[in-house]
Amino acid sequence: MSAIRAGGLAGQVSTSPSVLEAHSHGEAMEAACLPAAVVFARKTEDVATVLRACHAHAVPLVAFGAGTSVEGHVTPAEQAISLDLSEMTAIVGMNPEDLDCRVQAGLTRQALNAQIRDTGLFFPVDPGGEATLGGMCATRASGTAAVRYGTMKENVLGLTVVLATGEVIRTGGRVRKSSTGYDLTSLFIGSEGTLGIITEVQLRLHGRPEALSAAVCQFADLNDAVRTAIEIIQCGIPISRVELLDDVQMAASIRYSKLDGYQDLTTLFFEFGGAPASVQEQVAAVEAIALSNNGLAFAWADTAEERTRLWKARHDAFWAAKAIEPTARVISTDCIVPISKLGELIAGVREDIAASGLRVPLLGHVGDGNFHSLIITDDTPAGHARALELDRRIVHRALALGGSCSGEHGVGMGKLEFLETEHGAGTLAVMRALKHAMDPLNILNPGKLLPPGPLYQG
Amino acid sequence: MSAIRAGGLAGQVSTSPSVLEAHSHGEAMEAACLPAAVVFARKTEDVATVLRACHAHAVPLVAFGAGTSVEGHVTPAEQAISLDLSEMTAIVGMNPEDLDCRVQAGLTRQALNAQIRDTGLFFPVDPGGEATLGGMCATRASGTAAVRYGTMKENVLGLTVVLATGEVIRTGGRVRKSSTGYDLTSLFIGSEGTLGIITEVQLRLHGRPEALSAAVCQFADLNDAVRTAIEIIQCGIPISRVELLDDVQMAASIRYSKLDGYQDLTTLFFEFGGAPASVQEQVAAVEAIALSNNGLAFAWADTAEERTRLWKARHDAFWAAKAIEPTARVISTDCIVPISKLGELIAGVREDIAASGLRVPLLGHVGDGNFHSLIITDDTPAGHARALELDRRIVHRALALGGSCSGEHGVGMGKLEFLETEHGAGTLAVMRALKHAMDPLNILNPGKLLPPGPLYQG
Repeated sequence: MSAIRAGGLAGQVSTSPSVLEAHSHGEAMEAACLPAAVVFARKTEDVATVLRACHAHAVPLVAFGAGTSVEGHVTPAEQAISLDLSEMTAIVGMNPEDLDCRVQAGLTRQALNAQIRDTGLFFPVDPGGEATLGGMCATRASGTAAVRYGTMKENVLGLTVVLATGEVIRTGGRVRKSSTGYDLTSLFIGSEGTLGIITEVQLRLHGRPEALSAAVCQFADLNDAVRTAIEIIQCGIPISRVELLDDVQMAASIRYSKLDGYQDLTTLFFEFGGAPASVQEQVAAVEAIALSNNGLAFAWADTAEERTRLWKARHDAFWAAKAIEPTARVISTDCIVPISKLGELIAGVREDIAASGLRVPLLGHVGDGNFHSLIITDDTPAGHARALELDRRIVHRALALGGSCSGEHGVGMGKLEFLETEHGAGTLAVMRALKHAMDPLNILNPGKLLPPGPLYQG
Repeated sequence: MSAIRAGGLAGQVSTSPSVLEAHSHGEAMEAACLPAAVVFARKTEDVATVLRACHAHAVPLVAFGAGTSVEGHVTPAEQAISLDLSEMTAIVGMNPEDLDCRVQAGLTRQALNAQIRDTGLFFPVDPGGEATLGGMCATRASGTAAVRYGTMKENVLGLTVVLATGEVIRTGGRVRKSSTGYDLTSLFIGSEGTLGIITEVQLRLHGRPEALSAAVCQFADLNDAVRTAIEIIQCGIPISRVELLDDVQMAASIRYSKLDGYQDLTTLFFEFGGAPASVQEQVAAVEAIALSNNGLAFAWADTAEERTRLWKARHDAFWAAKAIEPTARVISTDCIVPISKLGELIAGVREDIAASGLRVPLLGHVGDGNFHSLIITDDTPAGHARALELDRRIVHRALALGGSCSGEHGVGMGKLEFLETEHGAGTLAVMRALKHAMDPLNILNPGKLLPPGPLYQG
């Protein structure tokens, strides 16, 4: 710590118990661990100062943004420094004519969108929490708009990264494409703070659609809803969002968000955006697909207020689930499969849920093949164990169908056990070789993303 | 070679002079170099056999597909094995319901699209030559459709890769997104055969648009044409293609492709695709933008024949340029800049062209900020030197405007000298550390992509 204080950051270091506690965990159920100290960075050079000190003394370091991780990413290793980037919130470059901007890593996407509203542009990636853009890079986040706009991977042009030694590099740039060298930007996106600390992000922005429309359609049979989503994607309809809430989730959301007029049935929420005629065309095509799959009547939300009300209900689904049993814990799965396998997966998952005796609303980004089971369980070790056991069954079903254990939440500590089954031992050995090349002292977020094992040696 | 023959590949090895010559170069002007032998792989295991032998004897290896590289990627190092993948042309998996397929690396995109035509799906990335999909991965290729569909980076879900040791790994998968581990797929895409040999590719497919339309608009002033393209992108119009041919290129194309009725003026070629009302809406919006920027009348191509004729003329632009002086050499630049800088760059480039005394048609993927100067020069060392000198000036202009020296052709040997200026020494040191971790013997396409220099050491 003396090296960090000597580096001019004395006023930015805290060891107060409340600050340490706030940085001891994210939103996962994994055990918390207090950091040795928290350093609040204000600029890239602060991060470099901290990393130089950590490197010199082989002290582990974990980055902390908004603390919204649900897989234990931000939980410190023993005696680690927690490096808080949440004060790094500046927009450092804005190029509306090129549809891009550069931000510090601690800015949240909500704050960014509020600040750039008058440009007519917006950043579309929308994970559930009020996450920072740096954290969203580190976990390769996505959300409800990925079906149209892609994930962080498709929406980041370049980065500033502080390496394990404290050296600062830039990756990518401002061009829309380039074929010059290894794609380091993509390597750091999703690397969960294990290869370097992202301090600035060059983001792609998008024009706000000229016209927007939203609708809801309910289904007596979940398979019909899934089939509807699949056919929308297969027809190439450029839908902005298509989200599924099953009957259990819908019942909770009707109660929590006062969605009068809806039934406790599986429901698809749709959003359409674009030029006016294109939106009308999308709506007509989607309505036809939904009705041909036994969808009950389409309910429209053409006013901004009604659209906001509906989509707020979708975004509040987690809280609606939590309100089912206010003292319980809600643990979310995050599987994804090729979309043609989604019906089969969900049918199996519902069997697992029934066998578990737990209450588990389902909701998800059904256009991507990604969904969350919100496992409601006692907030006790035994309750956690039951939830984890169900999560494991669901993950193994998804992997057996060619899927992935996480569509958007990341690995952290929570999904480590599935990585070898998902990727194979040889692929993990390559990942470990890259990690070793970038961080041989293993000071960057040790214990996350990669389970221990052999390194590929060329 | 004995190890390769002993590995069961005796019948797939050639040292005949004509085969060696055909594998001694791509389409670049860099000096050719004969390989020690050419091995024709038929399956991933053949590639593994060859690499195990190369690794055991520290023999360099370069992959060869269609030989369409224009930057020297496929030119062998001294005494290298050239591994020809052009017989690996199978479609090994087809999932129309998920809009994906898996192909061997030697299949060309034209052959793929011909074979999957009856599915209603297509693969959109279209570099100029009849390149293999493995080569397109290795160079992070794009083409005229990138403005709508993205590059190889956005259209590959996963890979099979043979590592330097001969070990076979799979990266990515079939899901549309995932947050589990380092993005090895993106790392191999654009790695130019220096980290591993790609043998299979999981591709994203797209639905053929229901409606298609094409148009041409001519401009007296090049800046007006560039401005038109910029405004189309800024308005978020989902145009399928927007290509610029300057007056010099247009004159050549009118002669070569018999484009009667057009003038020797800067011209934009447009393609629109989607559902019918959306196409009409796009067309109307683009026509309004073009006319407001002093575009002369829109010429329509609504029939399939006329569309094909126009776009064939665009795709034949290189040959039209070559026909200006049939004995000359045509050397293409490949700069890209943020689109707002494109007008400034092209103005500067035209000054450089005038000062050079060379004849240089310009054409490009103007919606991405990427364009090619087709430098026509004597096919002599002195002619090459003059062309390279002009290329250098153009690249340095692009880099000074925040651009990249290659939008889609890659680094190979031809762009090595620009990498440090473009990325910075620290970033290159990281790339070298990754290369060293994957291929410490430096047998995978040595001398390409990365100029020599220090390795990052964490």
